[in-house]
Amino acid sequence: MSGAFAFRLIATDGAARRGEITTPHGLVRTPAFMPVGTQATVKGMLPADVRAVGADIVLANTYHLMLRPGAERVARLGGLHRFMRWPHPILTDSGGFQVMSLAPLRQVTPHGVTFRSHLDGATVELTPERAIEIQALLGADISMQLDECVRLPATRSEIERGVRLSLAWAERSKRAFAGADAGRALFGIVQGGDDAAARIDSARGLVDIGFDGYAVGGLAVGEPQDVMLAMIEEVAPVLPRERPRYLMGVGTPDDLLQAVARGTDMFDCVMPTRNGRHGVAFTRFGPINLKNARHAEDPRPLDAESACPAARDYSRAYLHHLMKAKETLGGTLLSTVNIAYYQHLMQGAREAIEAGCYADLCRRVEAGWHLGDIPPGGA
Amino acid sequence: MSGAFAFRLIATDGAARRGEITTPHGLVRTPAFMPVGTQATVKGMLPADVRAVGADIVLANTYHLMLRPGAERVARLGGLHRFMRWPHPILTDSGGFQVMSLAPLRQVTPHGVTFRSHLDGATVELTPERAIEIQALLGADISMQLDECVRLPATRSEIERGVRLSLAWAERSKRAFAGADAGRALFGIVQGGDDAAARIDSARGLVDIGFDGYAVGGLAVGEPQDVMLAMIEEVAPVLPRERPRYLMGVGTPDDLLQAVARGTDMFDCVMPTRNGRHGVAFTRFGPINLKNARHAEDPRPLDAESACPAARDYSRAYLHHLMKAKETLGGTLLSTVNIAYYQHLMQGAREAIEAGCYADLCRRVEAGWHLGDIPPGGA
Repeated sequence: MSGAFAFRLIATDGAARRGEITTPHGLVRTPAFMPVGTQATVKGMLPADVRAVGADIVLANTYHLMLRPGAERVARLGGLHRFMRWPHPILTDSGGFQVMSLAPLRQVTPHGVTFRSHLDGATVELTPERAIEIQALLGADISMQLDECVRLPATRSEIERGVRLSLAWAERSKRAFAGADAGRALFGIVQGGDDAAARIDSARGLVDIGFDGYAVGGLAVGEPQDVMLAMIEEVAPVLPRERPRYLMGVGTPDDLLQAVARGTDMFDCVMPTRNGRHGVAFTRFGPINLKNARHAEDPRPLDAESACPAARDYSRAYLHHLMKAKETLGGTLLSTVNIAYYQHLMQGAREAIEAGCYADLCRRVEAGWHLGDIPPGGA
Repeated sequence: MSGAFAFRLIATDGAARRGEITTPHGLVRTPAFMPVGTQATVKGMLPADVRAVGADIVLANTYHLMLRPGAERVARLGGLHRFMRWPHPILTDSGGFQVMSLAPLRQVTPHGVTFRSHLDGATVELTPERAIEIQALLGADISMQLDECVRLPATRSEIERGVRLSLAWAERSKRAFAGADAGRALFGIVQGGDDAAARIDSARGLVDIGFDGYAVGGLAVGEPQDVMLAMIEEVAPVLPRERPRYLMGVGTPDDLLQAVARGTDMFDCVMPTRNGRHGVAFTRFGPINLKNARHAEDPRPLDAESACPAARDYSRAYLHHLMKAKETLGGTLLSTVNIAYYQHLMQGAREAIEAGCYADLCRRVEAGWHLGDIPPGGA
C-alpha cells in the first residue's frame, strides 16, 4: 500500500472533498484527523490502539523531537516510524509554531529563528533548511515548511511582514527539500492572520512556488470560529484542486465538520488527548465531563453503541473514579474514546461525501450534540 | 472454570508446591503472582493487557476502595469484577496494613481501628466485621481477615500483643464470614514479627480456628531477606498441607524464588508496577534502569526472546526517551514488561516443580541475573 506521495480526489459534495493520499508508509483516507504524538507518542496510548480506533496517520512535533531525543539520534535509530513503532504515515510540523509558543528568548531574523531550549537553556537555531533537514532525519512522510505564525491581534504591517517572511522561507524550504528521498512530500503553509487579502497573497505566493499540499496555519489561536471559517473560504479558491489541504491545529468536532464543508482534507489537534486526560469525553451526545459528580454512580457506558471498547464497555462510574483517583488509566481510556470519536466523525464525513449527503450528516451530528447526553435511565 | 473455592495440590518438589485454586471467577495456577490493583486498576495497564501477560488473579486494596469510591457504591454498580472489568479471580486485603501505613491519627483498640481518611479527614472505623462486610460488598473471591501488623523493630511484648489481637480478630472475622456467598474464601494472617515462637503461636491459633488459606503478613517491611525466609520456614510446618499459603506484599524476583522453595503458593507486590513507573525493568538479565544514559541510543529491545511485546518490540532507546520525557507510556510499557516477567517466573516455577527440577530452575535463573545485562553489540 506504499508508494510515492500522491493525492487522488475520489468525490466531492459541494466544497467538501473525499480523497486519498498515498505515502511511502501507506494510505491516508481524507478527510483525515491526525492524532498528535508530540514526543513520539500519542500520550497515554499504545500505537496499536491508536491504529485500532482508525487513525491512518499521526503528527509528531519537530520542536520537541529536535531537542529530545534529537533528530540525528532518531535517524541513527532507524527513523521515527521505527522509533515509536508506528509503521504508518507520519506528518511532522516544522517546529516554527512551538518555537513561537514555547521557547524562551526567541529571536526571529530573515535567516531563521534562534531560541533557548526549554529543557536545558541551550541556544538553538532553526532555519528553513535545518527544519527540512530535521524532518528528513526523522523520516517524515509529509514535511512542513518553516513559517512564522504572527500572534493575533496584529497590525496589518505585522501580518504582511509575517506573510513575506514565511514566503521567503517557503522558497528556501522548497530548495532544501529538492534532494529529499523519493516519495516524500513537502507542504507550504498559508499565513496572513485574520486579513483576507494577506491570506490570499500568501496562498498565491505558495502556489507559485509549488508544493505537494497546502496547509492553513495561524488559525485556531483564539479567534472566533467564524473568522477562522472565513479565512478558509478566502483561501480555498486560490489553492489547486488536486492538492490536499490541511488546517493546522484544529479543532473541536464542530470545527472539523465546518472546515470539511469548506474543502479541508486534513486536521491535527491535541484536543482529544489533552481533554481526555482532563476528564472530558467527546461523544455523539456532545462533550461529557467525567469528573462531574453526576457520573459517580452511573453504570452506563459513555455510548453503548460505540465501536470503541473504551466508550462501550467501561461504566461512567468507573471512568469518574479513575479521574478522581488520578489514575493514568482514566486519561488513557478517555484519550482512546476521543481519538475514536474523531476518527468516527471523519469516517462519517468520508461516507457522506461519497454518498452526496454531507449536509445531512452535519445536521444529524449537530442535532445529536444539541440534544445532549441521555439522562440516567433515559436510554 | 468457576466454582466453589478449592485448592488442589498437583505436585511437590522438596518444599515447593505446584497447585491450583478454584474460585467463583476461575482458576489460579500456583505458585501465583498477583498484580496489585490498588484503586481498582493495575496502574497504567488495561485489564486485558494484565490478563494477556499471564495473570490469573489480581489484588485490590480494601483501604483505598472503602474510602473511594466506597464499598457500598461498588456493590450497587455490580461488584468489583464488573467495575474494573476484570472478570477473573480477585483477592482483597483487609485494609489493616494500609490503615497502619497510610492513615493519619489511627487508634487501635480491641474493638478495631479508628483513623482519619487521608482523602477528606473524615473519621472512619474499621473492625474485623466491617472489613469482612466491605470485602463482601466488593465481591472478592478471596477475603483477608483484619489483622494488626506491628512495626519492626518491636519488643517481644509488643509482638505478642499484636499476635493476640490478630487472633481475636481472626475469630471475629471467621464468625462474620459465616454468612458469605457460597464459594468465597477467607484467609487468616500469621503475624509475629521476627519472633519464631510468636509466629508459630500465631499460625497454630489460626489453624485451630480454621481458614480456607493462610497468609504470612508483616514481612518484607524492611527486615533482611534471611529473617523473612527463616520466618516462612518456621511457619510452614504448622500450616495444613491442603491449604494455600500466601506471602503478603512480597517481593523481588529472588524473594519469590526463595519463598516458593519454602512452600509459598501466592504473592502480591507493587514492585513490578511501581518500579516500572520509575524506569526499572525486571528481566532475565536482572533489573535494568532505563533512565540510565547508556540506553539513550541502544536500538536493542529489553529482551529479544521475551514473549511480551513490550519487552521484545520497543527499543531501549525509546523506553529511555519515554522515561526522560515523562511520558506515561513509559510506565505503562515497563509495568507490562515487569508483570510479564513476574508471571514468566511463576510459570517457570510451576513447570519446574511438576518436572521435579525446581532447584535447577533457581540456579539457572539466578545465574542469568548474576551474569547481568548483555552489553550493546554483545548479543
